[in-house]
Amino acid sequence: MNQQIYTLSQIVAELGGEWRGEDVGIAAVQPLADATPDHISFLANPKYKSEVAASHAGAVIVSPKAADEFTGRNLIVVQDPYLYFAKVARLFSPVEPAVAGVHPTAVIEPTATVPASCEIGAHVYIGGNTVLGEGCRILAGAVVEHDCVLGSRVVLHPNAVIYHGCTLGERVEIHGGSVIGADGFGLAFAGDSWFKIPQTGGVTLGDDVEIGANSMIDRGAMADTVVGRGTKIDNQVQIGHNCHIGEHTVIAACAGISGSTKIGSYCIIGGAAMFVGHIEIADKTTIGGGTAVTHSIKEPGHYATCYPLQTHKEWARNAVHVRHLSDMAKKIKQLEQQLDTLQPQHNKDNT
Amino acid sequence: MNQQIYTLSQIVAELGGEWRGEDVGIAAVQPLADATPDHISFLANPKYKSEVAASHAGAVIVSPKAADEFTGRNLIVVQDPYLYFAKVARLFSPVEPAVAGVHPTAVIEPTATVPASCEIGAHVYIGGNTVLGEGCRILAGAVVEHDCVLGSRVVLHPNAVIYHGCTLGERVEIHGGSVIGADGFGLAFAGDSWFKIPQTGGVTLGDDVEIGANSMIDRGAMADTVVGRGTKIDNQVQIGHNCHIGEHTVIAACAGISGSTKIGSYCIIGGAAMFVGHIEIADKTTIGGGTAVTHSIKEPGHYATCYPLQTHKEWARNAVHVRHLSDMAKKIKQLEQQLDTLQPQHNKDNT
Amino acid sequence: MNQQIYTLSQIVAELGGEWRGEDVGIAAVQPLADATPDHISFLANPKYKSEVAASHAGAVIVSPKAADEFTGRNLIVVQDPYLYFAKVARLFSPVEPAVAGVHPTAVIEPTATVPASCEIGAHVYIGGNTVLGEGCRILAGAVVEHDCVLGSRVVLHPNAVIYHGCTLGERVEIHGGSVIGADGFGLAFAGDSWFKIPQTGGVTLGDDVEIGANSMIDRGAMADTVVGRGTKIDNQVQIGHNCHIGEHTVIAACAGISGSTKIGSYCIIGGAAMFVGHIEIADKTTIGGGTAVTHSIKEPGHYATCYPLQTHKEWARNAVHVRHLSDMAKKIKQLEQQLDTLQPQHNKDNT
Repeated sequence: MNQQIYTLSQIVAELGGEWRGEDVGIAAVQPLADATPDHISFLANPKYKSEVAASHAGAVIVSPKAADEFTGRNLIVVQDPYLYFAKVARLFSPVEPAVAGVHPTAVIEPTATVPASCEIGAHVYIGGNTVLGEGCRILAGAVVEHDCVLGSRVVLHPNAVIYHGCTLGERVEIHGGSVIGADGFGLAFAGDSWFKIPQTGGVTLGDDVEIGANSMIDRGAMADTVVGRGTKIDNQVQIGHNCHIGEHTVIAACAGISGSTKIGSYCIIGGAAMFVGHIEIADKTTIGGGTAVTHSIKEPGHYATCYPLQTHKEWARNAVHVRHLSDMAKKIKQLEQQLDTLQPQHNKDNT
Repeated sequence: MNQQIYTLSQIVAELGGEWRGEDVGIAAVQPLADATPDHISFLANPKYKSEVAASHAGAVIVSPKAADEFTGRNLIVVQDPYLYFAKVARLFSPVEPAVAGVHPTAVIEPTATVPASCEIGAHVYIGGNTVLGEGCRILAGAVVEHDCVLGSRVVLHPNAVIYHGCTLGERVEIHGGSVIGADGFGLAFAGDSWFKIPQTGGVTLGDDVEIGANSMIDRGAMADTVVGRGTKIDNQVQIGHNCHIGEHTVIAACAGISGSTKIGSYCIIGGAAMFVGHIEIADKTTIGGGTAVTHSIKEPGHYATCYPLQTHKEWARNAVHVRHLSDMAKKIKQLEQQLDTLQPQHNKDNT
Repeated sequence: MNQQIYTLSQIVAELGGEWRGEDVGIAAVQPLADATPDHISFLANPKYKSEVAASHAGAVIVSPKAADEFTGRNLIVVQDPYLYFAKVARLFSPVEPAVAGVHPTAVIEPTATVPASCEIGAHVYIGGNTVLGEGCRILAGAVVEHDCVLGSRVVLHPNAVIYHGCTLGERVEIHGGSVIGADGFGLAFAGDSWFKIPQTGGVTLGDDVEIGANSMIDRGAMADTVVGRGTKIDNQVQIGHNCHIGEHTVIAACAGISGSTKIGSYCIIGGAAMFVGHIEIADKTTIGGGTAVTHSIKEPGHYATCYPLQTHKEWARNAVHVRHLSDMAKKIKQLEQQLDTLQPQHNKDNT
């Protein structure tokens, strides 16, 4: 719990923007509905305007356009209230710094390099020749195998696993249970069984990459699997071997990306979207949740394949016809031709 | 292995119901096909009736209606044979009690509270200010960070992770590799990169919640993510930040629920069902496996969107038309209008 | 890093095939585009033929048919260049043998059997009565509960979990974060809450099974869940209780298989394919990525249900009609009948 109080003028001094009304003290951020007078809240979407009037928030972050409607309230006026809210929230909850020291139960191989500024938790294992940057936090039960390089201020949450030979940039954060660098799924059929192709590449994660819980990024078959700097990946995302993900791309939970696929920068990938392998997705592409991406996308835009929810009864009535769409199309064509025969004059007039 | 023998009369004394035939001794439950004379089996679905005759089971649990057909067999007659079978199975395999004691390799921070009745396994880590109830079993490699509260008889299986500030009710059970309380996926776009919104809420799990292996429940952004008592969640289920799941709801494997979605009580969510964020699902709603839930459901009922399996050849012929459904609908309308022109009298007669 | 050099004649002596050109020394395998003169590359798909000319590879593995086109190059000529490449890659990266020894932080219960040839990593836990074969590698943080049997040369990667009572064949490999033997999802409804059915079976994995990262194979309710020898399972695959997977089947990432489903041998299951429970899939069946398998498949073949990617605009126009397919089919029928009335003679002539 951070009990620090900031007045509106102090917040503005720190983060910019303009404050109006009384220079009240604020103890935390809260949504409009839950806020009390020592909280600051925000209005990012005009459709929640009516909630501002009803809110007990001590102050509200609003856009210049909205500000004029709330002249009675204490305000901070900024161009992007949502981003500003995020920054105020960070002011109240700063990134936890490393508490320097190695827990006595941690195991660090003698050839590893761990600066004194790092926090190494209980039951951590750090393999031979692995090099950590300054101020890393490797929390309880996390494992970093041999020959890895971690930039400064990397955070590995409990029980995260980094296989050997992976490279993590500065400030990379990996949540609990995620596995970076497991073998890619490479097999050659040998007549009656599968022969495993050794996966000798690694994984490279750029600066400021964040990866949620129980996600996986496989090591490359020969070259590395790469995630560009600033890319944010949610929980339970699977990224196959030799994928290249660009910079500042966002991938929501449960998405799966098959091997050797390239995704551009500033893409937004919806939850549970699935990508076949060996395709390329242009920069700034948005993929809807649950979409199956079956071919390359060269034009940035918004793509989707998710089908509409129905009651089970409607679904049972309709879904069966999906199997007969080709026949339906054919019948429509026949009907058009038959009608054409019946009314040749009429049709000619219309063309 | 539990080698305890129970006679039919002892089982009935313990669990209710009526026994018929010989008071045989039973050593275990088994399905009809695998059972031998020291096993008890059950008939829950009348369509397996013929298997009863063929079964070598020493006794069979049946409904009153079915009982009359099996007069030659040793029976236990009850209203709900499936539930009764579950209870008999539990009689033979009681919930394992904690073997009180702390493994010498476990690390418990000095400010944590761990009653003497708890079982704390090898390489467990329990953070500062965390409070455990009586009789908890925290198994090998599990991690509970600081400031958590666990009710009595909570079971954490190996390598499960509970982040700081989470609250687990009585008898909560979390399977291996699951991660409770990782950061929600909250980001604000800052023009050229993503600014992370601090996730300062926690997770609250009600009494008797069970969560399978490698599942994730993210902590809330400001308030808690909540799962109501008695709700059972399978493996690899993703629950985003600030979701509210009701009581006694069942969520099958691979389902994903985006942030701030509310699911009612007594719902049944099929495997791999996916929910967008910020929607509400009524109590007692059933969602079919693989369904994409794209909007709120106010009427309880059975919903689905999963499309029928086809051979690849059928699929290739039909799937392409999904992209032209709008055109097909338009053509049908045109055909109707053209026909209408050709037979005005006929149509008027019918309307 | 393996710095071993093999000449073409040495490779052929080891693995068969025929070499042509100069007997150059090779230090590693690399794709055509990345290879330098001390690398060997391969041409498996004739469509990449032009890359051979451009490649700096010291030698190329080709089929007899392709060999004649590359008379100027150093070649190894074999029937299956891709499989041969895999074997050459393995020559340069042999399977890592166990480095015999038990890390001082590992916990092995006194009643467990761990041969001296095994490698037991930091913070490993091995439960009572568990028996390991020769040369197993149990890496950092992995947990094997009581009463398991592991064949020789099993590899468990960091933080993998094997619950009690599971059986792993020879050379089974389980990647980080995977959980074998968690409870199946078995519940009986008890009027107002769910009664858990004890899961008393185990899991049996045949020889040479490999399982990727963060996958789950649940223990059986009464009998075992079984995966046949040689089957290869990718990351984040969920296999429910009492499933039977055949031999030499391949299951790609994010697939989910509900309880009691049987999948044959030599099947190929695409990524994110989902199977309902209690069905049977014939040997040698191929299931496309993202397919929902809703009923048994008796005829081997190639099956799919994945719908085509569209722009969001196209999708919005078309997807809505999926809910009205039944009406569309009905209207087409009506149109056919109406046309039939208008042209009875014409139709009779055609039939």
